[in-house]
Amino acid sequence: MMSNNIENIISELKKSLNEGRFKHSLGVMETASVLARRYGADPEKAQLAGLIHDCARDIPFDRQLKMAENFGILLDDIQKSEPVLIHGPLGAEIARSTFDIKDEEILNAVRLHTTGDKNMTLLEKIIYLSDYIEPQRCFQGVEDLRAKAFMDLEEALIAAFDSCIRHVMERQGLLHPKTISARNFILLCKGREERP
Amino acid sequence: MMSNNIENIISELKKSLNEGRFKHSLGVMETASVLARRYGADPEKAQLAGLIHDCARDIPFDRQLKMAENFGILLDDIQKSEPVLIHGPLGAEIARSTFDIKDEEILNAVRLHTTGDKNMTLLEKIIYLSDYIEPQRCFQGVEDLRAKAFMDLEEALIAAFDSCIRHVMERQGLLHPKTISARNFILLCKGREERP
Repeated sequence: MMSNNIENIISELKKSLNEGRFKHSLGVMETASVLARRYGADPEKAQLAGLIHDCARDIPFDRQLKMAENFGILLDDIQKSEPVLIHGPLGAEIARSTFDIKDEEILNAVRLHTTGDKNMTLLEKIIYLSDYIEPQRCFQGVEDLRAKAFMDLEEALIAAFDSCIRHVMERQGLLHPKTISARNFILLCKGREERP
Repeated sequence: MMSNNIENIISELKKSLNEGRFKHSLGVMETASVLARRYGADPEKAQLAGLIHDCARDIPFDRQLKMAENFGILLDDIQKSEPVLIHGPLGAEIARSTFDIKDEEILNAVRLHTTGDKNMTLLEKIIYLSDYIEPQRCFQGVEDLRAKAFMDLEEALIAAFDSCIRHVMERQGLLHPKTISARNFILLCKGREERP
């Protein structure tokens, strides 16, 4: 049933996403599946979450705002000023209502894939990172990040957060507090593990 | 009376700070005074806040922790893991109890000089920035930042926050959420001003 469902979703996404985004979504699906096998998460869930993570991304921003309101999604000041941050929480609601996905773990991974959050689940970490390193991605340092992703998930995540924060600062954008909490949380946990 | 008080405080700081930190404190005092004149803050308050901002900085960390506890300062997880963040709030209490400074505006500028915070007062902005650009400071980009500080206080502050965030990331340190809120707040206000 899962694979049938995936075929249907792929057909739907091919219609609703632009070509680049569609390829990116397939890339995230595959990368998430491989990372799930590497780190012991459920590969089918990772595949599905990776595939649908950007399902709301190509909806025009004014419509995203309207849809978010209709779904009862509460947007903070940062999301209102940086509309690119809406498609995560909105995507989770579309995945639930349009693609009939009820698995909260998958929906949360979609919801958080742009900002991250403190205390992320393994699946959430895998989707965040897969989005960053899938084969279509091309930016300075992406090769190192890909290599790191298969060696140490946490180290790779911190590097991805740092890269994201640098990118936002370069364009004088707003930094979402959840990204900062996500990064701090991992570093704090690592610090506690390393203490004798 | 203010100038007498300043002379006494300078003598005290000469004893409790190391030589470099003492020079730095005089540098912040002078820079803050000049920036206050430039932007219409009270130069005497700026001088005093600049002079004392690091009064707790050279106390050993374990003693800073103990003193903070005795003063009833509540430390968050980030401050507990990054003890360099304690000397701001602790310095404000020492300034009050040892140097008999009662002006809450000055004390808040000392309290926030390491992290910043959302909705900073003019004096708080001046002290944060003076700490970053006083003549002893030497890092890549400091000359540009000095020039910017006298042209556009807000732009210079954002550049200082960005530089601080980069520096913390380079050493895999924790980012204090107040620094992020401080930066976002200024950008959000600028965005609102720029809207028609």
